[in-house]
Amino acid sequence: MSTSRLELIALPGLPLVQPGDDLAGLIDAGMAAAGLSLAAGDVLVLAQKIVSKANGRIVDLRTIAPSPRAVELAAAVSKDPRMVELILSEAVEVVAHRPGVLVVEHNIGVVVANAGIDHSNVEQADGSENVLLLPEDPDADCRTLRRSMADRHGVDIAVVINDSVGRAWRNGTVGLALGSAGLPALWDLRGDVDLFGRTLEVSQQALADELASAASLVQGQGDEGYPVVLIRGLEFPVDDQTARALLRPREEDMFR
Amino acid sequence: MSTSRLELIALPGLPLVQPGDDLAGLIDAGMAAAGLSLAAGDVLVLAQKIVSKANGRIVDLRTIAPSPRAVELAAAVSKDPRMVELILSEAVEVVAHRPGVLVVEHNIGVVVANAGIDHSNVEQADGSENVLLLPEDPDADCRTLRRSMADRHGVDIAVVINDSVGRAWRNGTVGLALGSAGLPALWDLRGDVDLFGRTLEVSQQALADELASAASLVQGQGDEGYPVVLIRGLEFPVDDQTARALLRPREEDMFR
Repeated sequence: MSTSRLELIALPGLPLVQPGDDLAGLIDAGMAAAGLSLAAGDVLVLAQKIVSKANGRIVDLRTIAPSPRAVELAAAVSKDPRMVELILSEAVEVVAHRPGVLVVEHNIGVVVANAGIDHSNVEQADGSENVLLLPEDPDADCRTLRRSMADRHGVDIAVVINDSVGRAWRNGTVGLALGSAGLPALWDLRGDVDLFGRTLEVSQQALADELASAASLVQGQGDEGYPVVLIRGLEFPVDDQTARALLRPREEDMFR
Repeated sequence: MSTSRLELIALPGLPLVQPGDDLAGLIDAGMAAAGLSLAAGDVLVLAQKIVSKANGRIVDLRTIAPSPRAVELAAAVSKDPRMVELILSEAVEVVAHRPGVLVVEHNIGVVVANAGIDHSNVEQADGSENVLLLPEDPDADCRTLRRSMADRHGVDIAVVINDSVGRAWRNGTVGLALGSAGLPALWDLRGDVDLFGRTLEVSQQALADELASAASLVQGQGDEGYPVVLIRGLEFPVDDQTARALLRPREEDMFR
């Protein structure tokens, strides 16, 4: 990869996203507001929350009847049983838990605290207790947006959906790729050589995750948030591989 | 954080670093070659390998006599006993292992495969088997460079030392902060509110790790590597906190 200069631009002026909104149209408006046109090789990074909202992944906790298993687990981790029910319904398995936190393998394969379900940045009305779930198929959402941008602008771009997630061993959250399209999410450097002609030891770079973290630097998280970031200057081959390539198969994982 | 536009620039033309080299001088030359001057608020991200080399953290495996424990463990994980001896001497504890990989808590607190010891990008001569160890105190190296740049240029900058590391649950490596100075490595968002005025749930952002990953996008890993990246445009308060703040205390860690 010979990228040596990269620009990250948060798109200004995006309105609050509502279920059913057309993200491609909103992004076009944001690009225009920034005085920019999409170019081949651009990468768009979208915050999970706007994709989930556009997809209508909003659930009112008042509609959830917790199962006996959820009630039991909720007591063990001191959480709302309805939330635990929702987390379990979004998860393949519980990886670890302690008071306040259920770390699960989400249905989309990502290992994430509380199934990525968020109270923040969700509109409430009439005493509702709305929470936001992760997209059901973020790779597909990325592919759809990528095709849509090719149709609208005649350029081949890449798309990443990111979220802020916790990790093993380290404090704080980093941006992680829930989905991607159009770039090698797991960049294979095997066969490349080092400065002295020997084969590289570090051989697979989690490109989509690094883009997700980079974008997070300009997205912010609160009321100043910029949910869409344009990354310009990255050199990469078009690739059908998606963020699924970043999921380590359970049988190869030493940490669950 | 109101950062909305960020630029990452890999400094061109840095020579191969040798033990004892003055990194501040090399970086000044790289900045000049790029036609740039350091400005207040700039962040410099340095690849671990050049800091380790400047610090002389090179060991010839031929000088290592493995202990009985290293020999035993080496057989279990199919590794060179001398390498295992070095890994153990760099580590506080072995967190997990399997053939080819020893995941340890390094003396500097980071959980990392094979203690971050690397064969790649190290010069060899006369049949030597040189490997490169992590810096002994990367936070101190960052502070030193930060002060040095303040003395040379009269500007307050931040410094991060990054390395490409593997993770639990996910394939591929990402840039991680081994050390930092001059910025809040763990950015505390507690007390901030969301779009609707409610307190944020995701409350601590691993800022130094996200900068480390972002820089990795332009550093490359092989013969085209750019070990120093300038990040310009980030808005952050000067802070005494270092990358140590990113280390989760063992007793709070669910994954070891």
